[in-house]
Amino acid sequence: MSGNSFGKLFKISTWGESHGAGIGVVLEGCPAGLPITEEEIQIELDRRKTGQSKVTTSRKESDKVRILSGVFKGKTTGTPIGLWVENQDADSSKYELIKDLYRPGHADFTYQMKYGFRDYRGGGRSSARETAGRVAAGAIAKKLLAKHKIRIVAYSKQIGPHIAKTIDYDEIENNIVRCPDKTIAEKMVNHILKARKQGDSVGGVVEVVAMGVPPGLGEPVFDRLDADLSKAMMSLPAVKGVEFGTGFSAATMKGSQHNDAFEMEGKRVRTRTNHAGGILGGISTGEDIVLRFVVKPTSSILKEQDTVTKQGKPATIRVEGRHDPCVSPRAVPIAEAMMALTLVDHLMRNKVSQAKNI
Amino acid sequence: MSGNSFGKLFKISTWGESHGAGIGVVLEGCPAGLPITEEEIQIELDRRKTGQSKVTTSRKESDKVRILSGVFKGKTTGTPIGLWVENQDADSSKYELIKDLYRPGHADFTYQMKYGFRDYRGGGRSSARETAGRVAAGAIAKKLLAKHKIRIVAYSKQIGPHIAKTIDYDEIENNIVRCPDKTIAEKMVNHILKARKQGDSVGGVVEVVAMGVPPGLGEPVFDRLDADLSKAMMSLPAVKGVEFGTGFSAATMKGSQHNDAFEMEGKRVRTRTNHAGGILGGISTGEDIVLRFVVKPTSSILKEQDTVTKQGKPATIRVEGRHDPCVSPRAVPIAEAMMALTLVDHLMRNKVSQAKNI
Amino acid sequence: MSGNSFGKLFKISTWGESHGAGIGVVLEGCPAGLPITEEEIQIELDRRKTGQSKVTTSRKESDKVRILSGVFKGKTTGTPIGLWVENQDADSSKYELIKDLYRPGHADFTYQMKYGFRDYRGGGRSSARETAGRVAAGAIAKKLLAKHKIRIVAYSKQIGPHIAKTIDYDEIENNIVRCPDKTIAEKMVNHILKARKQGDSVGGVVEVVAMGVPPGLGEPVFDRLDADLSKAMMSLPAVKGVEFGTGFSAATMKGSQHNDAFEMEGKRVRTRTNHAGGILGGISTGEDIVLRFVVKPTSSILKEQDTVTKQGKPATIRVEGRHDPCVSPRAVPIAEAMMALTLVDHLMRNKVSQAKNI
Amino acid sequence: MSGNSFGKLFKISTWGESHGAGIGVVLEGCPAGLPITEEEIQIELDRRKTGQSKVTTSRKESDKVRILSGVFKGKTTGTPIGLWVENQDADSSKYELIKDLYRPGHADFTYQMKYGFRDYRGGGRSSARETAGRVAAGAIAKKLLAKHKIRIVAYSKQIGPHIAKTIDYDEIENNIVRCPDKTIAEKMVNHILKARKQGDSVGGVVEVVAMGVPPGLGEPVFDRLDADLSKAMMSLPAVKGVEFGTGFSAATMKGSQHNDAFEMEGKRVRTRTNHAGGILGGISTGEDIVLRFVVKPTSSILKEQDTVTKQGKPATIRVEGRHDPCVSPRAVPIAEAMMALTLVDHLMRNKVSQAKNI
Repeated sequence: MSGNSFGKLFKISTWGESHGAGIGVVLEGCPAGLPITEEEIQIELDRRKTGQSKVTTSRKESDKVRILSGVFKGKTTGTPIGLWVENQDADSSKYELIKDLYRPGHADFTYQMKYGFRDYRGGGRSSARETAGRVAAGAIAKKLLAKHKIRIVAYSKQIGPHIAKTIDYDEIENNIVRCPDKTIAEKMVNHILKARKQGDSVGGVVEVVAMGVPPGLGEPVFDRLDADLSKAMMSLPAVKGVEFGTGFSAATMKGSQHNDAFEMEGKRVRTRTNHAGGILGGISTGEDIVLRFVVKPTSSILKEQDTVTKQGKPATIRVEGRHDPCVSPRAVPIAEAMMALTLVDHLMRNKVSQAKNI
Repeated sequence: MSGNSFGKLFKISTWGESHGAGIGVVLEGCPAGLPITEEEIQIELDRRKTGQSKVTTSRKESDKVRILSGVFKGKTTGTPIGLWVENQDADSSKYELIKDLYRPGHADFTYQMKYGFRDYRGGGRSSARETAGRVAAGAIAKKLLAKHKIRIVAYSKQIGPHIAKTIDYDEIENNIVRCPDKTIAEKMVNHILKARKQGDSVGGVVEVVAMGVPPGLGEPVFDRLDADLSKAMMSLPAVKGVEFGTGFSAATMKGSQHNDAFEMEGKRVRTRTNHAGGILGGISTGEDIVLRFVVKPTSSILKEQDTVTKQGKPATIRVEGRHDPCVSPRAVPIAEAMMALTLVDHLMRNKVSQAKNI
Repeated sequence: MSGNSFGKLFKISTWGESHGAGIGVVLEGCPAGLPITEEEIQIELDRRKTGQSKVTTSRKESDKVRILSGVFKGKTTGTPIGLWVENQDADSSKYELIKDLYRPGHADFTYQMKYGFRDYRGGGRSSARETAGRVAAGAIAKKLLAKHKIRIVAYSKQIGPHIAKTIDYDEIENNIVRCPDKTIAEKMVNHILKARKQGDSVGGVVEVVAMGVPPGLGEPVFDRLDADLSKAMMSLPAVKGVEFGTGFSAATMKGSQHNDAFEMEGKRVRTRTNHAGGILGGISTGEDIVLRFVVKPTSSILKEQDTVTKQGKPATIRVEGRHDPCVSPRAVPIAEAMMALTLVDHLMRNKVSQAKNI
Repeated sequence: MSGNSFGKLFKISTWGESHGAGIGVVLEGCPAGLPITEEEIQIELDRRKTGQSKVTTSRKESDKVRILSGVFKGKTTGTPIGLWVENQDADSSKYELIKDLYRPGHADFTYQMKYGFRDYRGGGRSSARETAGRVAAGAIAKKLLAKHKIRIVAYSKQIGPHIAKTIDYDEIENNIVRCPDKTIAEKMVNHILKARKQGDSVGGVVEVVAMGVPPGLGEPVFDRLDADLSKAMMSLPAVKGVEFGTGFSAATMKGSQHNDAFEMEGKRVRTRTNHAGGILGGISTGEDIVLRFVVKPTSSILKEQDTVTKQGKPATIRVEGRHDPCVSPRAVPIAEAMMALTLVDHLMRNKVSQAKNI
């Protein structure tokens, strides 16, 4: 209710702040009997962590996860799983200097308005560091999806003006921007580094694909699969839009172009094209689920900007510190986690859609 | 939980199908003492109803609303408000012919997969007719927002290749496509009519603006105002994407361009630009909330399409019947309703964000 | 959230007032493919309706139910089921006389305090008439339980000082107080009639038993089966307490007496006794679930009582009108409905408790 | 949804097991700006902790609480508050011996049935140790209630056959059974010690009183204040029944006896008596809220009992270990916590009951 939980049957609640003791997540509703280890969770956290390359922040967090509850003898018990990632490199000294300044593009002003009081150290709760909890829980969701041979892949589709033309999944983790197109990846890296040198930042588009999702997931009319996925992605910091399949280009299409014809593939109903992005009427069709979201350029920039103080005085600000010059590369594992969490929740919810299964 | 409710404190549950007895909605959590009449609700329903013009379906529904509970002597009592719109022109005969055919672009196949059984008459529950309930409840939400001088305006921003260039709110209801640009409106109408003559349909983009929203609405980190609004819009039939402020064009912007500088306007903190679309960190800034969503071209078209039968046989289909050739014009009041419902819910949720108010 | 819904996966939302247009209920989450007819629902409503005998109110309501949505060709579609019972004999004239008087034992004062405005006709929303919606939805729940051979029986265990000594399920519907002990039933009837003659009312205890419930239902640590059942029963008008198995008498027992020894019955684990009432640690054991709740004597009595007016003036009141002199007999089908609704919800929730089922 | 959360606006989620790493709780929805310290929380935890006296278990847990998030510079920030109590004296060796035995009265069998796999160390998640999280969060709820001058008192009303006759709040913490009647307290202590000497345990009744609660709390028709409080108390281990005001004795009362007459006290509406226990129609009246719940005798006893093994073989068991011979004394602070959590949630929910406040 207070907004810190996501999911209905498979539900996470995250807690913790950027420069507090650490980041925690409680995963409720994970069914019993699933084997899971800290090592498996760590793999996903390592993909998200800071200091990976020259296009990410230099803050050094080992992001070591501890399973604090809900797992016994290597298997989930059906009770809440508490996961904990301690903050280590939480240097909050520089935030003292700007504690009364509202950083443009950040949530400083809005948190102050909403709560009347805020943790100004590194954005506090509004920091992207909170997503460590999502990624940790998402690793468990991925484990469940693997049982169903459901696979999720995300990647940088666009950074600045550079758009991936070829999609080679094997290439994604080979470059530091996580782009599936090797040639474009290089251009993306240069684009980021050039902006950073100017004390600036850049935006991008991440594409997320889920393969092997069975038809039938989604709970109309409000908890449509695409509605819940939109909320999942829009709940990530810096995301300003989301689209499915042909997305916004559907505005210029005709029905005869956009409609995906049905055809049989053996005994399975398929669609010849997938303009719908794998979802019709809010329910999965069995085709790949394909979505994209846009991330705005990182708000923390070295360039001087106009702002005001908490006391209502005009001021200027240069946001020093260690920041990602582009959100996209590290958003990839986070987006995969959100996709995984949403799909597991809907898999579980769909268990009770037909009377013959009750 | 089953997906038919929206909102937390101010919550609607819709029920009913396209060709059943009618469309109902239960509004829970509406505070007591608000004056409301059937006439006020009817105004909004009339904006959504069928048969308004040559660019909408010719199905004739008077959409008369009845208040069945929760209002006494013209005022809400704080108990659930039941609203009911009876179906009248529900000719389901032609659906018998296609009851075993999956219409491309529609939810026939996915409902069959999910539930193993479906009401094939006019899309049943997946029909846009369900949104009558949302519009009815939205009228009550608008009444509450008016107390706060919050005003919502939506309009067709784009239909096919035609994009509104000037935004004149007074023009919107003057043309049948609800476009704020008179010149472009004519082009949009012609575009739709031409497609209809070809037995085809077209897509579009609707823009929704909320003015006068106070800063502080939104419940991070998952129930961010933009995340909830995205879900609200994506839960509408035919919507394939949503974006805020600069939206997808943020991908090619720099941080120094996208960040909205803060400045003082008397005692009020404003932003010089509004690239953020009125939301930072998932919380309203006090600037206009600006979002757009794309609607795909209507799935029901007269042109012959390939499909399969429920029994797995290839077939062709021409979807006869009375359908909107473009979703956008009638989506306008529906979008306003979803915006209003979301804002009231967040206004109420925000009441308890500070201890001094408890 | 606003308190008018019950259940998580199998959820009802009731709406409507005693002297408004009628009583409605929306049932969300009922799985698709369940055969259900208005006639089946009517059977349960007839057991609850007014004017059944000399120990119930003389208000005459036919309580005819209409299925307004969610059922197609005699089967549920998985979409929300709207049920509607129109009010007919809603004579609200006499309530005009007492609209400014707070009836002792009733919710007049508290509704006024909470909402600042209330529907004073017959208790409005606080009337037991609201339970018609629960009974209607409960009939569908019972249909689902029948598939599992789960059977629910409720009866008047005690009225005034008269306590049933023998429990003969076949006797329950043979007498107008729904007591399973024929001899005691007569005493109960006389006790009620005597009180009514004095312009007074009496209290009682209802016992509810569920047979055939599989082990494993209940969601610790808060949504324990007994916690949810307690809430279910306590949400009924006039209920002031609930207990399971040995209930309050456990206070004077020793652990060695109260503990139910485990033993094998073929391959099934049973308990030798059932002091626990079929629930351990909040989860069903597979033994009969046994609970009792107490109903206070009906608040509406002819005897003169002291009270105050809405304006704060002392006054006296005699509550005329048509009221049940004892709540118990008509509470029986309502209690069964609440038990059924709770069990179906937990059956569905339990579907996802083990990873091997996901 | 999975059952580990309580509350809607002011919501706790507990996690952790008896013999795992520790017990955690996440409190969501606590409004910002409330001063709170670890020391204040510790006071309540110390009242619940083990090893307090000769009538409690000898397990030694310091139950030191750490605030891990949501508090900055001594004040709540409005973000989730993570609290953590590490397990210290978690000797699980003796549980290895009985890991395949179902302890009578415990949740061993039902957890095994539900989840197919369980943490057998000290009851795992079903242990009363879980309530440490509730008490910690309850301390924060009490802090909020203090602002409203709402005070909660709980005490042992009955242990075995001994019932408190006088109610002296100042006496409660003076004796180790937390009984408000000094003379009866001694008898209770002797009763417990005698049973323990016999390797047995005893039951009891706890009474909980809330003073200063304003009229208007409670959300009919399902989330009535008494329904939610019943669920709160029934969600505690070993509780088998709950009643309000006159409770079960209402069964033998007449309406003319049970109804509480209204009268004026200055400008305030009062009831002359409080048979209703401070709640009418599910909404608080402004009088003291008075409830009682019964705790069964502790299930863990040294006496030999019949049981079966996980493999379905008959067996006998003597439950060694360190257990409370009576639940009541330590249930007192836990019950206060549940009352406090429920009241704060309803205070917050009630903020939006009238349109004039929105």
